[in-house]
This record gives sequence, C-alpha cells and structure tokens, in this order.
Amino acid sequence: MGDKHFYMNLAIQLAESVVGQTSPNPAVGCVVVKNGQILGMGAHMKAGEPHAEVNALKQAGEKAEGADLYVTLEPCSHTGRTPPCADLIIEKKIRRVFIAGLDPNPVVAGNGAAKLRNAGIPVEYGICEQQAEKLNKFYFHFMKTKKPFITLKTAVTFDGKTAASSGNSKWITSDEARLDVHLYRHRHDAILVGINTVLYDNPHLTTRLPQGGKNPIRIVLDTHLKIPMECNLLNDNAALTIIVCGKHANKQKRRAIEEKGIKVKKMSAEKIEIEPLLDWLGEEQILSVFVEGGSSVHSSFIDSGFFQEMIMYMAPKLLNDGKGTSAFAGIPKQSLQDSIPLVFKSIEQIGPDIKVIVEPMERGK
Amino acid sequence: MGDKHFYMNLAIQLAESVVGQTSPNPAVGCVVVKNGQILGMGAHMKAGEPHAEVNALKQAGEKAEGADLYVTLEPCSHTGRTPPCADLIIEKKIRRVFIAGLDPNPVVAGNGAAKLRNAGIPVEYGICEQQAEKLNKFYFHFMKTKKPFITLKTAVTFDGKTAASSGNSKWITSDEARLDVHLYRHRHDAILVGINTVLYDNPHLTTRLPQGGKNPIRIVLDTHLKIPMECNLLNDNAALTIIVCGKHANKQKRRAIEEKGIKVKKMSAEKIEIEPLLDWLGEEQILSVFVEGGSSVHSSFIDSGFFQEMIMYMAPKLLNDGKGTSAFAGIPKQSLQDSIPLVFKSIEQIGPDIKVIVEPMERGK
Repeated sequence: MGDKHFYMNLAIQLAESVVGQTSPNPAVGCVVVKNGQILGMGAHMKAGEPHAEVNALKQAGEKAEGADLYVTLEPCSHTGRTPPCADLIIEKKIRRVFIAGLDPNPVVAGNGAAKLRNAGIPVEYGICEQQAEKLNKFYFHFMKTKKPFITLKTAVTFDGKTAASSGNSKWITSDEARLDVHLYRHRHDAILVGINTVLYDNPHLTTRLPQGGKNPIRIVLDTHLKIPMECNLLNDNAALTIIVCGKHANKQKRRAIEEKGIKVKKMSAEKIEIEPLLDWLGEEQILSVFVEGGSSVHSSFIDSGFFQEMIMYMAPKLLNDGKGTSAFAGIPKQSLQDSIPLVFKSIEQIGPDIKVIVEPMERGK
Repeated sequence: MGDKHFYMNLAIQLAESVVGQTSPNPAVGCVVVKNGQILGMGAHMKAGEPHAEVNALKQAGEKAEGADLYVTLEPCSHTGRTPPCADLIIEKKIRRVFIAGLDPNPVVAGNGAAKLRNAGIPVEYGICEQQAEKLNKFYFHFMKTKKPFITLKTAVTFDGKTAASSGNSKWITSDEARLDVHLYRHRHDAILVGINTVLYDNPHLTTRLPQGGKNPIRIVLDTHLKIPMECNLLNDNAALTIIVCGKHANKQKRRAIEEKGIKVKKMSAEKIEIEPLLDWLGEEQILSVFVEGGSSVHSSFIDSGFFQEMIMYMAPKLLNDGKGTSAFAGIPKQSLQDSIPLVFKSIEQIGPDIKVIVEPMERGK
C-alpha cells in the first residue's frame, strides 16, 4: 500500500506508455484504489476512444464504489466524442479524486474539478504536477498558444558541421542515433523538411521502429513548388502529406499535386512565413512538429523565435573543415551578448554519439 | 578491515590528491596495513622529495615489520634523487607487497618487483591497474613516446563557433567553466598558445584557483617573433616562459627577449613543426601540454596527429551565424568517411555549460 504519490506515479507511467498515440488528445493515465488494493488501471489509448477514467473504472467494476481515483489530468466535464468523465465518476460513487494537474483546455479548465466538488466528492490536485505536464508538453503548449510545439533536430560532427565543404554528409550519426530519431517521428504529429531535403534525399519521412510506430504527417516547405512529381513523398501513400507553397507558386503544378490526393497549402505571402504557417497548422489540430531541417529551414524557425526544443546529435567525428556547412545560419548575432540564450535540458550518450537537448531560455512564443 | 581492492583504492585516492604537483615524477600513493589496521599512509608530494613508500613506512614506524604494503606504482629499484624504495621495503621486513601496475620507466620496469621477490617478499600486481594508470596518463604516455601528452581545449557556442563573424568572442563560457580550465592548467606541466592569442588578449596564462595552484610553463608558438616586448608574458615573472620561433626569426628580437630572462627556442625549420617541437619538449622533461589554441594552433596538432585528448566546453548560446569562426580549421577532410574518428570519454554539465571530452579513436602518436 503506497501513498498518493505512489499511485499518481503509476498513473503517470500508464500515460507515458501511450505518448504519441493519443493526439490531438493528451496522454492520460488513471488508477482506482480502495483499501490499498488497486482495482483498476487504464489509459486513454486513442482520440475517439474511451478516456483513461472510463477504462480504469470499467476494470474496477462494481467495487469502484467508495474507491479513490487517481488521474494525471482533470476529468472532462463536457460531452466531446465521449460523455463527460466527471459524470461517470459521480455515478460510480467514487470517494475522493486526486488529480496531477488541471486541464488547460478552456472547455474543461477547472470545470471538471468543480463538477465533482459540487457533487460532494473531495478533489485534490497538484500531485506530481510537473511530471504530468512534461508528459503532455505538446498539448499544454498548444492549449496556451494555439500553435504546434516545434522541435528542431540536427546532427553534427564534433566540429559542429552538418556536411563537409565538399557537400558530403553521409552519414554523420550512428544507427543508434537514427533509431532514436524515429522515436521522435512517432511521438510528433508532423514532420517538416525543406524542399532541398526532398530534392537531395528523396526521403519517405516515415517512422521505422522495430515495433512499427505511427507515421507523422509530412510537411514540405516548398515556396515555388519545385517538388518532383515522381518523388517518394507524393507517391508512397505512407502518410498524410502537405506541401506548403508561396502565393506565386505555379497553379498547374499545384493542381497536378492535388490530383494525386496530396494537400497543397498556399500561403498568402510570396515567401513562407513561420507564424501564419503555425497558426494554420494549429487550426488543423497539429499539436507538434518535428523539424528535420537544414540550416535555412532551422533558421527560419530560430529567426522568428518559434521553437520550443532543439535536439542535437553529435558524432565523434572531426572534419577539421573550417568551411564545412554549419547547422545554423540565419540572421547572425553580432556578439556573444546578443546571442540567443538557451538552457541545456539533457545530455546523454546514444551508441557512439551524444544527444544534447536545449530549450530557449525564455520558452519560445 | 577491507580486501586488497579496498586498500589499493585508498592508495589511489592518496595519489589522486597530488596529481599535478609531482611532475616529472608520477603521482603515487601508498598504504601500510597489518591485521586489518592501517599503520601508515603516504603520497609522493613533489619531485626530489621522499617517495610514497618512504612517507607511509615512516608513519608506520617499527610496527611496519610483517605488514603488507599497497602502492599504486612499482617501487623503484635505482638510486635517483632518493635511495631505492625496494631496499627500504626489504629493510623494514614488509611481509607482502601489492602493486597496481609496473613502472613503465625503463630504469625500473619490473626491476623493483624482481628485487623484492629476490629478497623473498611475495609481490602481486595488477590490482586496480587501469585506474592507477589513468591517474598518471601523462607519465605513461611520456614513458612510451618520449613526447608530452597533448590536451587540446576549446570553447564553443551551441552552434560550434569560437567567435561571431564580427570577431566578438567574449565571453563564450561561464565562470564555472573557466574555473574548470584553471584546474587543467594546474595539472599540466605546460600551457601552449599561438602568437595571435598573445596579440589579441595579452594573457597571463597563470593558474587562478581559489586555493592558488601551480602555474604551468608558458609556451608561445611565434614563428616570426611578433611578440610585443611589453606583453604580460614577457614581464610578469609569473612562470617559466618559452617562446618558440622559426629559423628565420629576427636575431635582435630574440636577444632582446632572452635578455629579459625568457627562453627562446629556435626550431631548425622555417615553420614550427609539431613533431620536432614535442621531441624537444620531451627532452626538457615536459610531460604534458595544455593547448588553449585558436583553430590554427589546434589544427597543427590535429593535422600532424599529435593529440591525446580534446576538451570542448559548449555554452548554451546560439549565434545562428553560418560564417562565425569554427573551432577547428586545418586540412579539411573531404567526406565523413575520411573524418578523424574520435571517442566520447565523458560529458558533464558545468554551471550552465557542458564539457565534452574526446580522444582520438586510435590514441594519437
């Protein structure tokens, strides 16, 4: 028999196991406990399917009456694709409800907890709140900004280069690091590249994990619609694909792409600007974007200030090449004092490589 | 009462505490134990002073008879500046001797252990040998190659730059990282910079630790003797200073520098080549050199293959400057396949920065 942190940690573990498969819903876990006995455990598996509370209460069955319920996010109070969980908790005569944190979704935002309290059920929240929020960082960011969470990914040599000055860039990192990248593809709603990546590498941008995994929506920034009609992205039917272009892109090319069943998003400006793009992606319910960009795509996110995390894989290889390609090349900062301040969040070894994660010191807009 | 690893670890701790103050001698620790009671502990404090065994045996006094002796390096068998430790161990009637590893110094190299065995004292070695060797990596490298161990140090932004394209480079790293650098200065026999560092920064290159510390010998690579007569290095009398020049350097300038009591080493070629320089430094009993170079000094060590370790401090700052100065810019490798293979040895956070240590995959010559 554990304390409330013990049960909440268990609920968080349940939620953690489904991160990446619930979007646009958050990953949520729930545990039902009576007299130190766990009666039910559940997570929300997929948008449109039952919430965590429903799964855990169903498992507990009639014994749920008088039990405590631990859930990583405030129970919903509204009818969405499923009925309100708060009502079910009241109906099942739960004794007390423990919540990690309130739901930032404005249609819930305290209403779930209020509904429970009005029904006479004591509610306590703020247990393991930071861990639970970290788990759903995409969701929390989206609810606050209505824009997707942006993760920039790059892979460099020990001397910080993404390619030799000869242009050669294969391969910088190890198989282990590339496998790690596929986990990020699985966990993000979308992956984004620039047109040059398509022209040079003709990638599929799918998730290739040993156990499969979810393919992200594929987004290509292609101002002038230079994308080759025969490329893999337009023909492999592996995942939803969106080609983003500027307002002057060729109409016929656009129609030809659309005839293949591929979405083309024409922006209202000549060049693709990041902020309106992110607003539109938010409207499309895309909560997170994994940017596998070259220096110009990355820099458009950095220069506009729209990024929440950067992941850098560094290989133990030295090109010793002062003119090799830099990972970042946007509007240069003139001095260290003017540089963009970051914070190291984690450093770890992955096979022979290292992975460094940073965030902007002031979290991006 | 511990086992032999317990006592050897203690001896290693004693040795570790004096790393940096014993050169050109190795750091050595010694523990004398009888019936599970520690009778004496000692380290070699400074070249010319008593060895670790002498200090530990002196502490044990008459009780040493019949005791076991643990020492991190084979006892010497020859008369150097002090008499042979093997003789003293025999004289003190030690029962058994445990050694981490044999001394690579050719005048010892197994002779110490043989002398003890010939006197009837059982000797066991190979206990915690790797740890003990790591402690004296400068010494082991020097004994094998007759050249100093070379550590290259650099400090970069998150995007791998040592300066913005404007030239600004102050400051990349934090106070905590700079303090860490002073510990390396203390532990190396010498520090080496290029003439540009002297011209731009007019540094002292001394060790400034809260508790003081040993100033390294200061070496400047200055092919054409451009060093300003009024610079700090030529005038602060803080440590032995060596200016290295090419064979065509101005004689009068050379004499003027020498008149200040500063050593000038004229190499036999027009340019300063690394291998003959390291051979000469070896003859001067300099076992380790900490290179705080810019990209051209570092690259002369990298291109010639003479480096044993690289330390990179990385600050959480982004210049986003594709044209900023790279930390390494020598003879560029044309492809990833041809790149210099390294191995990550450690990664740690230091204040807001990170420190990454690599070695060449095949240890440098």
